[in-house]
Amino acid sequence: MCWHKRICLLMLAVKRLAQGLCIKGIAMSTYQDRLNALRAQLVRVQLDGFVVPLTDEHMSEYVGAYAQRLAWLTGFQGSAGSAVVLPEEAAIFVDGRYTLQVREQVDGAHWRYESVPQTSVAAWLGAHAPEGGRIGYDPWLHTRAWVKAAGEALTERGARLVAVDSNPVDAVWPDRPAPSDARLVVHEERHAGQSAAEKRQAMADWLTVRKADAVVLSALDSIAWTFNIRGKDVARTPVALAYAIVHADATADLYVAPEKIDETVVQHLGNAVRVHPRVDFAEALKGFTGKTVAADPERAVAAIFEALEAGGAKVLPLRDPAVLPKAIKNPVEIAGHKAAQARDGAALSRFLHWIAVEAPAGGIDELTAAARLEAFRRDTGLLEDLSFDTISGAGPNGAVVHYRVEEKTNRRIEPGSFYLVDSGGQYRDGTTDVTRTIAIGTPTEEMKRRFSLVLKGNIALARTQFPAGTRGSQLDVLARQFLWAEGLDYAHGTGHGVGSFLSVHEGPQRIATFGGGDEPLQPGMILSNEPGYYKTGEYGIRIENLVLVEPREVPGAEREMLGFETLTFAPIDRNAIAVGLLTGDERAWIDAYHAKVVEIVGSQLEGDALAWLTAACAPL
Amino acid sequence: MCWHKRICLLMLAVKRLAQGLCIKGIAMSTYQDRLNALRAQLVRVQLDGFVVPLTDEHMSEYVGAYAQRLAWLTGFQGSAGSAVVLPEEAAIFVDGRYTLQVREQVDGAHWRYESVPQTSVAAWLGAHAPEGGRIGYDPWLHTRAWVKAAGEALTERGARLVAVDSNPVDAVWPDRPAPSDARLVVHEERHAGQSAAEKRQAMADWLTVRKADAVVLSALDSIAWTFNIRGKDVARTPVALAYAIVHADATADLYVAPEKIDETVVQHLGNAVRVHPRVDFAEALKGFTGKTVAADPERAVAAIFEALEAGGAKVLPLRDPAVLPKAIKNPVEIAGHKAAQARDGAALSRFLHWIAVEAPAGGIDELTAAARLEAFRRDTGLLEDLSFDTISGAGPNGAVVHYRVEEKTNRRIEPGSFYLVDSGGQYRDGTTDVTRTIAIGTPTEEMKRRFSLVLKGNIALARTQFPAGTRGSQLDVLARQFLWAEGLDYAHGTGHGVGSFLSVHEGPQRIATFGGGDEPLQPGMILSNEPGYYKTGEYGIRIENLVLVEPREVPGAEREMLGFETLTFAPIDRNAIAVGLLTGDERAWIDAYHAKVVEIVGSQLEGDALAWLTAACAPL
Repeated sequence: MCWHKRICLLMLAVKRLAQGLCIKGIAMSTYQDRLNALRAQLVRVQLDGFVVPLTDEHMSEYVGAYAQRLAWLTGFQGSAGSAVVLPEEAAIFVDGRYTLQVREQVDGAHWRYESVPQTSVAAWLGAHAPEGGRIGYDPWLHTRAWVKAAGEALTERGARLVAVDSNPVDAVWPDRPAPSDARLVVHEERHAGQSAAEKRQAMADWLTVRKADAVVLSALDSIAWTFNIRGKDVARTPVALAYAIVHADATADLYVAPEKIDETVVQHLGNAVRVHPRVDFAEALKGFTGKTVAADPERAVAAIFEALEAGGAKVLPLRDPAVLPKAIKNPVEIAGHKAAQARDGAALSRFLHWIAVEAPAGGIDELTAAARLEAFRRDTGLLEDLSFDTISGAGPNGAVVHYRVEEKTNRRIEPGSFYLVDSGGQYRDGTTDVTRTIAIGTPTEEMKRRFSLVLKGNIALARTQFPAGTRGSQLDVLARQFLWAEGLDYAHGTGHGVGSFLSVHEGPQRIATFGGGDEPLQPGMILSNEPGYYKTGEYGIRIENLVLVEPREVPGAEREMLGFETLTFAPIDRNAIAVGLLTGDERAWIDAYHAKVVEIVGSQLEGDALAWLTAACAPL
Repeated sequence: MCWHKRICLLMLAVKRLAQGLCIKGIAMSTYQDRLNALRAQLVRVQLDGFVVPLTDEHMSEYVGAYAQRLAWLTGFQGSAGSAVVLPEEAAIFVDGRYTLQVREQVDGAHWRYESVPQTSVAAWLGAHAPEGGRIGYDPWLHTRAWVKAAGEALTERGARLVAVDSNPVDAVWPDRPAPSDARLVVHEERHAGQSAAEKRQAMADWLTVRKADAVVLSALDSIAWTFNIRGKDVARTPVALAYAIVHADATADLYVAPEKIDETVVQHLGNAVRVHPRVDFAEALKGFTGKTVAADPERAVAAIFEALEAGGAKVLPLRDPAVLPKAIKNPVEIAGHKAAQARDGAALSRFLHWIAVEAPAGGIDELTAAARLEAFRRDTGLLEDLSFDTISGAGPNGAVVHYRVEEKTNRRIEPGSFYLVDSGGQYRDGTTDVTRTIAIGTPTEEMKRRFSLVLKGNIALARTQFPAGTRGSQLDVLARQFLWAEGLDYAHGTGHGVGSFLSVHEGPQRIATFGGGDEPLQPGMILSNEPGYYKTGEYGIRIENLVLVEPREVPGAEREMLGFETLTFAPIDRNAIAVGLLTGDERAWIDAYHAKVVEIVGSQLEGDALAWLTAACAPL
């Protein structure tokens, strides 16, 4: 164990004492009681263990309160993880982002900490499950691939994986929140750019080519996109809890709680869409006897495949047909996105002006700043929600890649530090995601040098040009090369897809070295361009703009070429740049970018804010 | 079909007439007779079809004459392809490199031309095999994955894939060459750097960790590496036809024709290695009842898995344990490789001097040049063989990526053109592979500009520095970025692994966008760095040096960093460079590289050659 880690753990131990063994006001003993209650329930239903993942029936990245079983059981507040409870031991599995946080939030006296991917839940079960034991899992919360892997690991152990009919955690969670009953809203065609009927017809054609009768949609953003509807059931992502089945005749069945649908939505859906209670979905899957039905092995849970097969359907494992057209924005969505960006860029610029004025005096902390930024976005009058919880990181907190500010971590934004703010808005015409790193007072030479290396990477990716068919993974190195040259790097991807008034993280396109990035980039796809650098305990740097994949006319080109159009407009802090490290081309890019910021954002500002923007965007 | 293709096909038709319907002196009618003979044989053995791949029982890239069934049956001379013979129709499958060549060499009256990967053999069988038919395949010439895919495709057709005991092509191939009876030679430890006993012990440990009793080795280079032996059974690759089984007790069984082994080799192999006739291998596989045996699904043919399972062994599908240690060269192999490079670089430099003097006068053609280059390599007195057939391409022939010079394609090397020469030598201490593109007389501005873009890519890759764990596929774009910026590209990978007095193409490491490149690069691996550019009908450019992955000491580095040490030393044609397109760093790299060429190669030259080298390596 490295010294740095030892010290962190020591700090955490002290912190926990200071917290009087409490997490968010809930005593550690409460979690012990919950663990005991679950174990008692497992005995009642004759299980020797149970797996508790952090997901929902739709494999969502962010899940509703009703599905926060992992947090309820263990106290873990991270956004990804899972747990296994056995009669004698219990383990919680988190990735590298959360190795410290899990020790802070989950009681080590009753939980073993395991790191993924080094230790997979399946492998751990294979090594720890009681010989010949029955390990339960909820088939509505796992993919088939997981069930297969875990099942095989247990078989070697002489143990068995058993699907439960009802989740035993829910049985012992008395005050479990009910799923949200928020109303659906229509996503108007002036924002969607294509009618739901046209989208269903395209899916019908897709089914016909594949000689299939129907396709099951379970990913919430796919359903929202397909039917041009939005919801409020998941924080930060405007989707509604639902399932859908689209048929080769272009009609569809939509499974959603009846109380969520009003007359307007019924009108919008039309006669070709039959609405059913969400609870009837599982039974409906059994009705495709002799039919061929497509389902996505990465997005549909095991229970969906099992129900289809139980009913005698032939299942085609195919990628959800909404995924690619949803990722390739149409002209109306692109125009809407640009309007949202201009609006959002103005709100962010007002905030940057405010920070520039207030922060050097001291007095501002992370929470205040995040609240002020949200207020500027609300002032646009068109903000539906933030697109994710604002990452507002002062000094060392900026080095925590997935930092989420809370009272007890809240820091003053101090002179001589970097302040990193990663935020975004959900507008009906588009979803934004932008990161700026601001030098408060005067940064050190090292800070400026590393900020400049990150900036050079961002510019290299923004300026690159590539043949059609190129995948995001091929471009990732362009953003890292300058850091690599000095032995530095960042431990996250360089770019993720972004939805249209949908998920701020959207596949299949991605710019990353690992875990995806194999989808060829196509004109109309929107991605983030966000290289960074993080010095633990000192400061964090990230510069993020969204970019649009566009065709490029290149004189004498022998290939169909593509490039990126930058979509995000807000000043990049000139005070953090070591100008000497930039090439002429890079300086020209920055100056042109800032000129565009003045053009697009300046027209929306006035007075001091406009004066500040003009100065902040002056040529280098 | 594009105009260019139409014209090419027209030219080919004319050519074929000119050839009097002959290919390499064999009348088209002969191939028709052979096809008829095979069909008659299929009737005798009650098959409705047969698949003829171009490979051997070891999945070799280059195969011996005895295994050239595809060429014998069809006349196709390319290095990759396969054929399917059905009662009424026959098809030959080749990739993009050979779409024109196959039409020239294979009679379209009796063969359909199919392109892979667009049409796979399996898919084609699924569409063309006679309903309920029995399609034969030789289980010693296909992987299990292929058998599975083809079998499934046929099942949908109601047809069956049937493994044959003896290959029906051999039954109708009267003068089929016998497998080579060349003697094995010992690969001395002063070249190998590690004893065969140590290598077997490492494999035994590997087996123990995996609770396995033995591992089957069928890849010829893996066997040569493991036992420190070499052979002469395959052109250009110093391997011997053999199979091996290494056991958890570090003993081994080697299956090789007895007449190939002399007393020296027996002594070298020692008592721990039991030698058996190669023909006894299949039977031996059936003797592992109840044992656990590892075999590589990518390198071992289907018949090996079937024989093991038939005998009641439990088979572990694992990567051949020789692959990675063979790719990671030890200090002795690296020192040997550098000695071979210095020697080979001198031979190549003498050739480049000769070309510089002779070519401008006219008079020299591709065949003469290739012969002269081989002579210079033979003059070293240490050349065992070329490492592949020299690619000697003048003008437009240089644009044919896998060009192989023959009498009928032989071109004069003319002033005002580029001459591309890709060649290498097999020396006991190392295998080389180098490409130079030489400007004969004065190149056009376009030629110089594109040569410089390729050079910039080669330099960018040579100079890059990356964290441990980086895969070759991540670095590929560095070599393409400058071509991309002008809408240009090249349709091949950027780098392949190279063996130590073994295969010139060696996995698992690779620098490429597709088809591999997922192996993390490790210190000791040798790869080629060979970006190119090809203007069909005009000229080809490729600049290839071999590089060694080495650890990098970077002050202040926060990651374990790696980089490349360039291993190939021969002048890069200064007359082809548009110096104005290079940055200061790039010019400095070239000048430093050329200084090293003078240092390493100059000491081996004298007189005019030395004077020429010094001038050719003068700073830009």
